[in-house]
Amino acid sequence: MEIKPVEFRDGKLILLDQTLLPHKIAYAECRTVAEVADGIKSMKVRGAPAIGITAAYGLALSKNPENDAKILLASRPTAVDLRNAVDFVLSEMKKGKSAAEAASEWHASIGERCRRIAENGATLIRDGMKIHTHCNTGSLATGVSYGTALGVIKKAWEEKKRIFVFVDETRPRFQGALTSWELRQLGIPHDVIVDSAAGHFMKRGETNMSIVGADRIAANGDFANKIGTYQVAVLAKENQVPFYVAAPFSSFDLSIESGNGIKVEERNESEVLLDIYPKGTRARNPAFDVTPAKYVTAFITEFGIHKKIKEVEMAWKSMPVSSSEQE
Amino acid sequence: MEIKPVEFRDGKLILLDQTLLPHKIAYAECRTVAEVADGIKSMKVRGAPAIGITAAYGLALSKNPENDAKILLASRPTAVDLRNAVDFVLSEMKKGKSAAEAASEWHASIGERCRRIAENGATLIRDGMKIHTHCNTGSLATGVSYGTALGVIKKAWEEKKRIFVFVDETRPRFQGALTSWELRQLGIPHDVIVDSAAGHFMKRGETNMSIVGADRIAANGDFANKIGTYQVAVLAKENQVPFYVAAPFSSFDLSIESGNGIKVEERNESEVLLDIYPKGTRARNPAFDVTPAKYVTAFITEFGIHKKIKEVEMAWKSMPVSSSEQE
Repeated sequence: MEIKPVEFRDGKLILLDQTLLPHKIAYAECRTVAEVADGIKSMKVRGAPAIGITAAYGLALSKNPENDAKILLASRPTAVDLRNAVDFVLSEMKKGKSAAEAASEWHASIGERCRRIAENGATLIRDGMKIHTHCNTGSLATGVSYGTALGVIKKAWEEKKRIFVFVDETRPRFQGALTSWELRQLGIPHDVIVDSAAGHFMKRGETNMSIVGADRIAANGDFANKIGTYQVAVLAKENQVPFYVAAPFSSFDLSIESGNGIKVEERNESEVLLDIYPKGTRARNPAFDVTPAKYVTAFITEFGIHKKIKEVEMAWKSMPVSSSEQE
Repeated sequence: MEIKPVEFRDGKLILLDQTLLPHKIAYAECRTVAEVADGIKSMKVRGAPAIGITAAYGLALSKNPENDAKILLASRPTAVDLRNAVDFVLSEMKKGKSAAEAASEWHASIGERCRRIAENGATLIRDGMKIHTHCNTGSLATGVSYGTALGVIKKAWEEKKRIFVFVDETRPRFQGALTSWELRQLGIPHDVIVDSAAGHFMKRGETNMSIVGADRIAANGDFANKIGTYQVAVLAKENQVPFYVAAPFSSFDLSIESGNGIKVEERNESEVLLDIYPKGTRARNPAFDVTPAKYVTAFITEFGIHKKIKEVEMAWKSMPVSSSEQE
């Protein structure tokens, strides 16, 4: 079964409703920009690249793209793909393309970038490895066939490497259930673990590598990703487990110097407070955290495997994926 | 309201069923050793000191204590209080005491030890501090008025220090809900957070201290505690947040040299796999982890605040809490 989390068809944007997965496969149809923004806010669609693609198509539903871009940009603050995708569509429209055309081009470009990320990253994976991952970074999170971190794992599996995956359940939203669901479809053996057990398995030498995605990567290599990523990174370093960040160039934000410039979204406390808590209990719910660059073994991008963001930037300048992006 | 998680009355052991908290306050009556062992296994009672007290009273329900001790000891493998309590009762019985008498003495001794832990630990807490804690270590976990780590927090609050507590939800069993429930009863302000956010708040400088309990402390200071404790310890060290372990001497196991000798219980995967996962999904569920001594700022015991276990041992030898324990 081909998963199509984001599809633009017959003038409608069709989102696989990820809040119902894996129990129920249902789609939400968006006919207006407001519906698209709501789909992003409510996490029907999630994952930095998938959010970017969704917002790009959102502009194809707009009668006033310049204005509606603001509504889309406000839907979630942390992932930079959203802004990059919207900027791309607006700029292509100025050159005479339709929004639908530009969005479709952006979508295809993310697909190609993720395919290259998967290929590049899979070279790091050896037969027999046990790989840890946090949150969901597969087709669901990217809107394309290969994901980012999970795309690397998928590719290694396609290359017949016998691998095993530790899947963080990823509280509060349990995106680990999405990752587990995708891994099952692919037939890749894995165990779900609570987020607080990741370090335990690293310390016992059961984990050979950790790979995560990113929502926004600053010029110095600090990056925002799902809450809990920072902990994984610190524990990986402490236990000499290589820690990789897999992300397309659309998740890089070279306009900000460091992680201090990244806005971390705090979401409603109800996501934390399951119904076991009495009414009136309070919670904090940061949706993301910022991991300093010093914990990252390397970044896996469509351009290769790089330790420094400067190298990613140079590779980007010399190796455009699509002809239009260098203008 | 006085919480009585473990009470021996009219020849029955009455356990507050913690699996129903905080929604429902209900008690389970145990009339046989098998029922007591089941109460421990199923986590109606939990927390190392409370498990020890429960097992001690369990022997008062036995017609064959030497034999039934084995059933109790097998109920949960990680907490050493269980063994220490059973050993105490059996040895007191040899001296002519009844099991009920000996168990009651053990219970009172834990109460006194925890009161001293609270007093000692509270000296570390300054007005305005934000304190992080993992799992539940209050009255519920100890079966006495003051808990261990939470007892320290309670005492500081009674001393009119304005404190704030970050409560890890503590997957998979959500013991954070028990901690939150106890803090509400005491009126202590707190927020619940997902376990994977603890490091985020430390990194942002929002956490001044982390205090946890222990299920078994080895002779070198390595200790077992609820899964996730190891991660907290590593993150605390990484962020220069003082990390304290509060435990009575009944949680020390000087017969084992290091954490390598501690058996970590793996519990049923169903505790991890909430009903969002399709049938057939697999999980790993280590209930505890082992934290190396190097991450511990100090141990808070009934004897004082000590950096080294040798100091705890010396204090124990020179400062008996009850007259009988030194024999």
